[in-house]
Order: sequence, then structure tokens, then C-alpha cells
Amino acid sequence: MAEVRVLLFDVFGTLVDWRGSLIDLTTATGGAAGVDADWTAVVDDWRRAYQPAMDRVRSGEPWRDLDSLQRETLAAVLRRHGVVLPADACETLVQGWRQLRPWPDTRAGLDRLRRRFTTATLSNGHVALLADLLKFADLRVDVVLSAQLAESYKPDPATYLTALRLLDCPPAEAAMVAAHAGDLAAAAAVGLRPMFVRLLLEWGAAVGAETAPSVPGLIEADDLDALATQLGC
Amino acid sequence: MAEVRVLLFDVFGTLVDWRGSLIDLTTATGGAAGVDADWTAVVDDWRRAYQPAMDRVRSGEPWRDLDSLQRETLAAVLRRHGVVLPADACETLVQGWRQLRPWPDTRAGLDRLRRRFTTATLSNGHVALLADLLKFADLRVDVVLSAQLAESYKPDPATYLTALRLLDCPPAEAAMVAAHAGDLAAAAAVGLRPMFVRLLLEWGAAVGAETAPSVPGLIEADDLDALATQLGC
Repeated sequence: MAEVRVLLFDVFGTLVDWRGSLIDLTTATGGAAGVDADWTAVVDDWRRAYQPAMDRVRSGEPWRDLDSLQRETLAAVLRRHGVVLPADACETLVQGWRQLRPWPDTRAGLDRLRRRFTTATLSNGHVALLADLLKFADLRVDVVLSAQLAESYKPDPATYLTALRLLDCPPAEAAMVAAHAGDLAAAAAVGLRPMFVRLLLEWGAAVGAETAPSVPGLIEADDLDALATQLGC
Repeated sequence: MAEVRVLLFDVFGTLVDWRGSLIDLTTATGGAAGVDADWTAVVDDWRRAYQPAMDRVRSGEPWRDLDSLQRETLAAVLRRHGVVLPADACETLVQGWRQLRPWPDTRAGLDRLRRRFTTATLSNGHVALLADLLKFADLRVDVVLSAQLAESYKPDPATYLTALRLLDCPPAEAAMVAAHAGDLAAAAAVGLRPMFVRLLLEWGAAVGAETAPSVPGLIEADDLDALATQLGC
């Protein structure tokens, strides 16, 4: 088996806690606007609206960035919940995806992995969003890459292949690190090594981690720190 | 005048000492191969061959990465100097562009500037080369961008505009930081704020710094540290 030298990281959920961060932000923003709602349900529904919105782009609509998609899905979710928020509060929530907290071990785990591997994001967030988010969370990777560079969204194979082309790396020498089975299955299908991080809290303690994908050669770890140890960093 | 929030950095010459590093590398590599030459002249001629090679791409040849261009120009320069080097030694020199030393103040200067600005490279080096080089030199920027993302080379206006599109930043809110008048003039022509770093040693002490370009709104500094002070970091 070829030696892996590049690690591509999913971001939302894998490196940062979108759910906890957005529940705090929606609660605070709603409170400041004097609007009451089940903000946890709003956040979960907003995130569930994310894949269908990207599906439209993957199936041929012109590419738009995540801010644009999230603005639209947020409006729909709020309507569905009967919640009326001022426009500036909605924009605060859309921009909130730039201020998501990392998991407690993310920063140190990335630093350990970066000593031995070339590390890059491969997120559905666009480059400008990722730049702000990584700066906010003080996360260091060698290169910030995004599905935007293929003008598509994961799990379109083009997103993985564009990242590898830019890193001048054959698929067999790269791994995809993610907490999501779909992302890993798609990456494995184009030849990347799948590395699953079993995050118990992405959707809250009651839901637990996703089931690991059934793909050959899967590496599994409970967090980035454990992954770093497993990979000999 | 709009507030600048993004700094784009030229790399070769501005952040790293290509000349001193390559003189050391060619001397060592030539020595190990038992080949004698005026390595300083070879390095200077190699670098002079760089713009004409990129001109061919800018004027319509299919885009190729810098490794490919440098491999070709190195062969021509060595022929011209009557130097015969084994193929693996030539490849060592081409790959040497990934191991250029930063100037003494580069790392700390970038760190200071990163506190206040979003920082990105905008180099004619391709992303894979820049990833290796920044890792080697331990230089941290928020985003690694390259002329490659426009499939062109600076000073093609498309290279600056592609970087700004990816950072979602209007030209008036960005600056180009470089030791080269041509780069700054081209960046200024598309609306970026030009920031000139007066590097005395890029081409050796005998040559001195380039003359600053005559462009409106030019900011000048002797090094990145002085630039950071001037910009209130």
C-alpha cells in the first residue's frame, strides 16, 4: 500500500462544533431580538436543509457559495418554525458559520498531524469562509482547500480530485479524514484512504456518532489526537 | 480610502531568499557530483530565464507548473554555461525551490501582520510547491493562493482577480506586498493597494533593491517587520 503523505480534513462537524456553536448563537441572537423559538430544533433543521441545497448545485444549478445557500435555507427553516427574525439577525446567523468552536482536541491534533503529513481542509465551505473560520478557531493547516475550487460540493468526485491535483498527489498517497460516512465513501471511491473520526457529540449526546462506512482499508479513531497516535505522529 | 483587510504576499524574493539558498544548493549539489561551475552566475541566469518562460504561458501556451518551466530553463542555462549535471542532480535543483530560506524577519513579520489582516500568498509557484515551501520555512499565512488558480502567471490581471474572488474581497480592500515593481504595478492597475518591501539583498548586495514603482498610494517599508509597524500591527 502506498505511503499516505497528504491528509484532507472535513471541517463542519469533524474539526468544529457547528451544532453547539450555532445553538448558542441563535439563542443569543434570538434573545437580543426578543424572539423566542426552539433554537435547537431550528439549528438541526437548518443543518438538515444543507445537503438538499447542495444537491441542487451538484445536479446542475450554477455554483453558489455556502453563505448564499445558507441564507436561503435559513429563511425557509424559520418560516417553517413560524419564527420571524429581523434581516440583520438572520445575517448574523449566516455569518455565524465563520465562528464555530473547534472540538477541545482539534487544534493540538491538527498540529501533531501536521508534523508528519501535509494537511489541508477539504470542506464544502468556500475559501473566504474557511479563512475566517480557521483564523477564528486558530486552527493551522498547510493549505486551505474547498469544494469551491471544483465549483461543486462534496461528495462530487471532482471535489476530491481537484484538491489532489492542486496538491500534486495521487489518490493512493492521500487520506480523507471525516466524521461522515458519505464523505468517506465518496473519497474512497476515487482512491483516497478513508479515516473515520467517531464524534459522539456532533448531533448531540442523544444521537451519538454516525455509523462508520463499510469501505475497505478504513482507519477509525475517537478523535484527532487518537488518530495522530495511531498514525505514529 | 477603503480599509485594507487582506494582504497578498509575493513569495520568491519577498518572503524567501531564493538566491542565497540556491547558490548554496547548486554549489553543494555540483560539488557532490564533482562538477565545477560559476554557480552564482548559473543561479542568476536561471532566475532571469523565469520571466520569459512564464511569458510563453501568459501569451497562450497551455499552463504548466513552475517545476516544469524550471526544469526546462535549468537545462538551457546549464547548456549555455557548458555545465553537464546528472539528471538526478538537476531534479534536486528544481525541487530546491521548495527549500528556500526565509529572510530573518519573515516569520515574525508574517505573524504580526496576520494578527490584524487576512494574509495569503499570491505566488507564481503552484499550490503544491508553496505547501512544501511554507512548511519547510515554517511560515504561516491564512490561505495559500497561487497564480495556478487562474491557470496563468503574474502579472496577468486574472491572477490577482482570481485570488480576490476566492477571498470574497473587493480590490480596494486588499493590498499586494512585494519586492518587485512589476508585480505591484500590475496589482495596482486592478485596484489593489501596492506595498513595496525594499529588499537590499534579493540579487546580492552589489545589486541592491529594485527601484520602487511609480504608482499612486504606494506604501514602502524596509522589511515585513517595519511594514507591520507602519500598518499599526
